[in-house]
Amino acid sequence: MEFSSDNWAGASQPVMDALSRHNEGMAPAYGADAVTEAVTARFREVFEIDVEVLFTATGTAANALAMAACSRPGGLVFCSDVAHLHCDEWGAAEFYSHGMKLMPVAARQGKITAQDLGAKLAACPEGSRLGRTVALSLTQASECGTVYRPEDIAALTATARQRDMLCHMDGARFANALVHLGVTPAEMTWKAGIDVLSFGGTKNGCWCAEALVVFRPEKLRDLVEHRARAGHVFSKSRFVAAQFDGYLADGHWLDLARHANGAAARLAKGIAASGSARLAWEPEANEVFAILSKEQIARLQAAGGRFYEWSKDGCGPDEAMVRLVTCFRTGDAEVDSFLSHL
Amino acid sequence: MEFSSDNWAGASQPVMDALSRHNEGMAPAYGADAVTEAVTARFREVFEIDVEVLFTATGTAANALAMAACSRPGGLVFCSDVAHLHCDEWGAAEFYSHGMKLMPVAARQGKITAQDLGAKLAACPEGSRLGRTVALSLTQASECGTVYRPEDIAALTATARQRDMLCHMDGARFANALVHLGVTPAEMTWKAGIDVLSFGGTKNGCWCAEALVVFRPEKLRDLVEHRARAGHVFSKSRFVAAQFDGYLADGHWLDLARHANGAAARLAKGIAASGSARLAWEPEANEVFAILSKEQIARLQAAGGRFYEWSKDGCGPDEAMVRLVTCFRTGDAEVDSFLSHL
Amino acid sequence: MEFSSDNWAGASQPVMDALSRHNEGMAPAYGADAVTEAVTARFREVFEIDVEVLFTATGTAANALAMAACSRPGGLVFCSDVAHLHCDEWGAAEFYSHGMKLMPVAARQGKITAQDLGAKLAACPEGSRLGRTVALSLTQASECGTVYRPEDIAALTATARQRDMLCHMDGARFANALVHLGVTPAEMTWKAGIDVLSFGGTKNGCWCAEALVVFRPEKLRDLVEHRARAGHVFSKSRFVAAQFDGYLADGHWLDLARHANGAAARLAKGIAASGSARLAWEPEANEVFAILSKEQIARLQAAGGRFYEWSKDGCGPDEAMVRLVTCFRTGDAEVDSFLSHL
Amino acid sequence: MEFSSDNWAGASQPVMDALSRHNEGMAPAYGADAVTEAVTARFREVFEIDVEVLFTATGTAANALAMAACSRPGGLVFCSDVAHLHCDEWGAAEFYSHGMKLMPVAARQGKITAQDLGAKLAACPEGSRLGRTVALSLTQASECGTVYRPEDIAALTATARQRDMLCHMDGARFANALVHLGVTPAEMTWKAGIDVLSFGGTKNGCWCAEALVVFRPEKLRDLVEHRARAGHVFSKSRFVAAQFDGYLADGHWLDLARHANGAAARLAKGIAASGSARLAWEPEANEVFAILSKEQIARLQAAGGRFYEWSKDGCGPDEAMVRLVTCFRTGDAEVDSFLSHL
Repeated sequence: MEFSSDNWAGASQPVMDALSRHNEGMAPAYGADAVTEAVTARFREVFEIDVEVLFTATGTAANALAMAACSRPGGLVFCSDVAHLHCDEWGAAEFYSHGMKLMPVAARQGKITAQDLGAKLAACPEGSRLGRTVALSLTQASECGTVYRPEDIAALTATARQRDMLCHMDGARFANALVHLGVTPAEMTWKAGIDVLSFGGTKNGCWCAEALVVFRPEKLRDLVEHRARAGHVFSKSRFVAAQFDGYLADGHWLDLARHANGAAARLAKGIAASGSARLAWEPEANEVFAILSKEQIARLQAAGGRFYEWSKDGCGPDEAMVRLVTCFRTGDAEVDSFLSHL
Repeated sequence: MEFSSDNWAGASQPVMDALSRHNEGMAPAYGADAVTEAVTARFREVFEIDVEVLFTATGTAANALAMAACSRPGGLVFCSDVAHLHCDEWGAAEFYSHGMKLMPVAARQGKITAQDLGAKLAACPEGSRLGRTVALSLTQASECGTVYRPEDIAALTATARQRDMLCHMDGARFANALVHLGVTPAEMTWKAGIDVLSFGGTKNGCWCAEALVVFRPEKLRDLVEHRARAGHVFSKSRFVAAQFDGYLADGHWLDLARHANGAAARLAKGIAASGSARLAWEPEANEVFAILSKEQIARLQAAGGRFYEWSKDGCGPDEAMVRLVTCFRTGDAEVDSFLSHL
Repeated sequence: MEFSSDNWAGASQPVMDALSRHNEGMAPAYGADAVTEAVTARFREVFEIDVEVLFTATGTAANALAMAACSRPGGLVFCSDVAHLHCDEWGAAEFYSHGMKLMPVAARQGKITAQDLGAKLAACPEGSRLGRTVALSLTQASECGTVYRPEDIAALTATARQRDMLCHMDGARFANALVHLGVTPAEMTWKAGIDVLSFGGTKNGCWCAEALVVFRPEKLRDLVEHRARAGHVFSKSRFVAAQFDGYLADGHWLDLARHANGAAARLAKGIAASGSARLAWEPEANEVFAILSKEQIARLQAAGGRFYEWSKDGCGPDEAMVRLVTCFRTGDAEVDSFLSHL
Repeated sequence: MEFSSDNWAGASQPVMDALSRHNEGMAPAYGADAVTEAVTARFREVFEIDVEVLFTATGTAANALAMAACSRPGGLVFCSDVAHLHCDEWGAAEFYSHGMKLMPVAARQGKITAQDLGAKLAACPEGSRLGRTVALSLTQASECGTVYRPEDIAALTATARQRDMLCHMDGARFANALVHLGVTPAEMTWKAGIDVLSFGGTKNGCWCAEALVVFRPEKLRDLVEHRARAGHVFSKSRFVAAQFDGYLADGHWLDLARHANGAAARLAKGIAASGSARLAWEPEANEVFAILSKEQIARLQAAGGRFYEWSKDGCGPDEAMVRLVTCFRTGDAEVDSFLSHL
């Protein structure tokens, strides 16, 4: 009953197989190899546009490099107050951007609205000594397992564009959001105004495969050089390409996400039906936030259940909100075992 | 006939096998897993001391993080004028250290001497507005395929210590140097005054496995936090640990290095005996620098030989110095084929 | 009727005289001169302790250098949400500290409480990936013209000290706060737990004279070097020393502050008595925040009154809160003229 | 006999007078005042082009801000190996530019040639992992008291332009070079390919008045913001403007430089005629480099002479090269007294 995080699994078998397959022979270093080229072409198909693709080792690297490339002195970056970029990356955005200031916007269930963003921007007028508006970063799926609809994204990016801001998407759980919405990658990104995407593979079946997907390269200056001097260029770069080769082939990435989302839905349905526990909100991706009694929590942990307590919001005195994350390896039996202990 | 670089191969079979083996099951993220713990313990055995170990994705990251952790405002870092840290890492040391200044010391065949270092230090007296002496970085094996003896290293670090400098070793080809010298890892590092080591696995049979091995943690402040905010913490951290597990088991890493060095020696012997080409200097690790005629170069390239032209030093008008790098996969047949085209 | 800011005046006559007096002759550059030495000794008398003193050109420089010297990777700095350091310095704190994150605490009338700080700290537990608690910065007098009592400061620094934080005071209006409280400089700073102070002279009668006064030099690493590489070391350093010589002699600095505070009190009293306008809160230094009708504002501006509209807080639909700043040059006639137009 | 440096004097009387004159009344802060506007217009007249002007407190700030504004990740900055920017500013260029790498070119008597620069650039081909060529910085007059002719500057900037580099002039002793050459400010700068100039007033009669004069604002991104977040914006900005008002009026700045250069020429002539000491090279500005016997040095110091020993280049065993700097206050009697002790 492992619901701690979707980065506790290893790699999916097709990803491991691709890694083994591309291990043969010699290939140019630093991304000049054929697999990297082929995978880059694959990304262009997936996004239906001539994107620039840069592999990184971690999602934090991808996010922070995007911030580096749009950095301006005195720059302000707007994001939700629960954004991973802000709360969980140990100041990477600030370091890479040479000190841009993050401006957290209060989120509801992980998401911010165009109206909230507009109000925050209005408090930062042009010419303010606070700094200058530079970027918006949205997380899709959000840190609370909820998903922005394309029209939500479009409204947010339109608001940001009025202040000439760059629009970044942290897609650590991109696939989970995509299969929930049933839209195309293009519709969820550049068609909705996103300029640059951190495309995550790690949480959904890769070992360590992330990519910066750049829709408007002219707005993200010197990204190649920023990555190089940050030490995020693999010499045996085809190792990341190989993972993406397995990941993106035959819709494998979407299958993995559907599996994880399905496990979350099964879990959520069971919790809602339990009578004794309740959902904090309806899950839309692979994370379930539920309010359990402390007794239930203790019982589950005693039975080998692993998950994090999240907050006290909406909880009674003997309750806590827990986060339950499913992944491509979560089995029905594991979910049902969890539910049986409620 | 692939002699371009030792990072053109994939991973060795035992390394791939270890990766597959550790792919099973779930494990805590961000380095809290059992494999990481076991491999860290293994490093302590290898170095015969209670080292701190931090995995990174690339050698540049390892080098640059070492510089970050010893950074002081106005700091000066001394290294050879062909040091990878200085010449090939796109300013990573400067970026991570918030602008320390690299002070290149003229190298002979890739190495600097304590005397040369002393002279350079004398030109940077205390109180100088140039800045303050902070660190020495040595590359072992050097970028020219030569190797510092432990007493060379001890003399250099003693000179640096007189100015209260931290001593870093860039061990991208650590194993190749070690098997050449026939000493222990401890003798080549902390017993000779090294404070922190970039221990490379990638060039010698891993996919992307590097480690900062810290002998004097009290001198390298906030290294864990520096790595975190640089985006160099893997969520599925056991993926690096697994590679090192395969790499360090049963002397595999030393076998790989002996193979690569042996191929270089075979190549060097053949070149020296060829009559028509000559060695620029005697190789001590897995890189051969040789002076060939342009005609030989063209003939070899036409036959599928791949390698880089390096410089014009010591060359006649119709000659060039080439660099030939061998690796764990280089076969005798490949070497002999090269020699046959001379 | 000039109430825009206390940095619209030039220098006071005694400060100008000191500048002329020390203009004669030659003196060592970069702070090695006798005037700098004498003024540093004077600071030690004023603060009754063996402080380290570093001159800077601007208050922003002083604040930001303090942040540089206590910087840690992933560091968090707590301050009020109206702190000049956060809102008005164009990201200087972030730049100098290589990206520390400012954590604004909601202020009431410019001040925060130990309780508010404690709650904010509790939300940033040790080990959090948000980062690590590093510093507290308090503004005295605050940006709203209010003043922390020594016991307020002591409670705040005690709270900060529990998390091993450094305590900084932005004393751009230090003298105004001091004469309001009637305490000693020592009581308002190090005796109340302050480790480093930005001591402002500019707003209170100097041209550009600020000083970092360091009470615990062992906690502020490399401050001299941070200042040097930031270009904040004057070659003709005695120019700042000379200003402070005039400023600190014979209690001149306290006289200037008493004058400015007195003008603010006269203004406040008149507003409170006007019947037609009202104070937003009671002023304690040289800034008056008052709520005026838009008609009054228009009338005053037409008559040559200059001041900034501040906010809409507590205002009716036809009102606005204005900020009225007095300084060492503000005359009674000017105040009375303002009041006559209400 | 004070020849230590040209920053040991205070301000010239006309500069002090201007400061007193502009001390009256109130004026907008942060550079929005009328004096700043008038002085900016004066700069445009002096340079015969519509320049952007930004005041700073120090020459280091001006130089470093220029580097900040042209910074690119992995950027390389070329300068002489005795450049103040490189050798005497405690790493400010590296700090402000977020880690650009300085590439020192060997100077002869303080100056580099287009040929030397070209050779250095050739060793840094495009695509090199060393980094990318970004800027050239020339010091005029040089640190060795020599002066580039406009055609020298044009040749250097043309070479730099071939690699798309920005051309910066460190004009800490701009006036001294100008009066030596007898050309116009335009001829010595933008007409010879200079993009941005650090225009120094401090060493030539101001207290602390430097200006960044920007000829191609479109190439120096965000300079205003870089300065703001570095804490180099004076609130009472007219204080710098006032100094420049006095400095630039009626050719005062050129008179001051002529005086200093004249004193140096008198000194050089006397040394050359002395028989017992000799010039290291012919001075062209306000610095004389001379080779004296150790006995002469001791005798002069005993008589109250103050100056720095510079190097051993070209010296016999009992000799040393000394630097003798003259300034606007150096008197004939002082020079003659020095000569009498040789």
